[in-house]
Amino acid sequence: MKTYRKEIWFDIPLRREFRNITHEIEGCLRDSGIKEGLLLCNAMHITASVFINDDERGLHHDFERWLEGLAPHEPLSDYQHNNTGEDNGDAHLKRTVMGREVVVAVTDGKLDFGPWEQIFYGEFDGRRRKRVLVKIIGE
Amino acid sequence: MKTYRKEIWFDIPLRREFRNITHEIEGCLRDSGIKEGLLLCNAMHITASVFINDDERGLHHDFERWLEGLAPHEPLSDYQHNNTGEDNGDAHLKRTVMGREVVVAVTDGKLDFGPWEQIFYGEFDGRRRKRVLVKIIGE
Amino acid sequence: MKTYRKEIWFDIPLRREFRNITHEIEGCLRDSGIKEGLLLCNAMHITASVFINDDERGLHHDFERWLEGLAPHEPLSDYQHNNTGEDNGDAHLKRTVMGREVVVAVTDGKLDFGPWEQIFYGEFDGRRRKRVLVKIIGE
Repeated sequence: MKTYRKEIWFDIPLRREFRNITHEIEGCLRDSGIKEGLLLCNAMHITASVFINDDERGLHHDFERWLEGLAPHEPLSDYQHNNTGEDNGDAHLKRTVMGREVVVAVTDGKLDFGPWEQIFYGEFDGRRRKRVLVKIIGE
Repeated sequence: MKTYRKEIWFDIPLRREFRNITHEIEGCLRDSGIKEGLLLCNAMHITASVFINDDERGLHHDFERWLEGLAPHEPLSDYQHNNTGEDNGDAHLKRTVMGREVVVAVTDGKLDFGPWEQIFYGEFDGRRRKRVLVKIIGE
Repeated sequence: MKTYRKEIWFDIPLRREFRNITHEIEGCLRDSGIKEGLLLCNAMHITASVFINDDERGLHHDFERWLEGLAPHEPLSDYQHNNTGEDNGDAHLKRTVMGREVVVAVTDGKLDFGPWEQIFYGEFDGRRRKRVLVKIIGE
């Protein structure tokens, strides 16, 4: 069995953004030399997400608006978590909706994806360096 | 290490439906000959879901009503994604709530499940051929 | 390839609670002797969750309030599932938001976590014995 590990770092200048990281993940898979197995990609921070969906600008706008409706950033006082001095109570909830991680099949050395599947990093509390973990096991 | 891969296709005649696919997945596991490992089952489409819950008709009705409340299908104009000519903006969001994938332990050649766990395909934009991927690794 | 399996049981005295189970999972990983691989931890019951977030009391209060807003326990008659004699229709929905499972990378014999990641058992229909499954594969 082979294993591979890499951290990918981000420094998103805004509070929230969705960034397509499919190419970076494909690069990791090539570097690993693994042809058959499973790939895990997870946010290493609890106010960020890794998820799979469509790379379509309108959809990302819809996600943003929908998440803000489900867990509004303000008023800050609505979140007890913000009593710790943070202002990211909403970000923990938004990340929960979008998910921490994805597990992707590796087949013939490629991400085994349907036609529109792309991997995104979802940032909900940016403006500082944060990272995702890529771990691949197989052979 | 052994690996196994199979696509299972669906052609759901309605826009939305939950279908129990546990038996098909058990069939894949038997075919694989794998006794110990991990099984990934994911939707290959971004408006569909694979999730684990109870096979109870009332619960599925509750899921349907709840999801329609969280991300209503109409008005279509509420979703920028629908400006692309699609009418499935809500389906991307509903699938996000229900999840893209499940990872299940394989023990003694069986899905290592609690008493009520069943695997479902969740269709949110049907009336065409779509598929899930089953990938198993282990030995 | 090595595999490891363990069930961890709970008897939460309240209907709902979040319990930090990171130490128990770390114990499983040590017992397994696995140094590189993937660890799956999932609820074996469909009204409970396993998720990763911050161990902060205010945040857990925010999760509780938010989930009760998204899927209120009462009125019981709002859930067709409760017509079966259950009163846990809301618990199936709350668990869906929080997720059934986590997959964690194992590196150098440790849970490969970011600085604040902790694993929680989320109970939404307690007052009886329930369990999570830990499955580790690797070498």
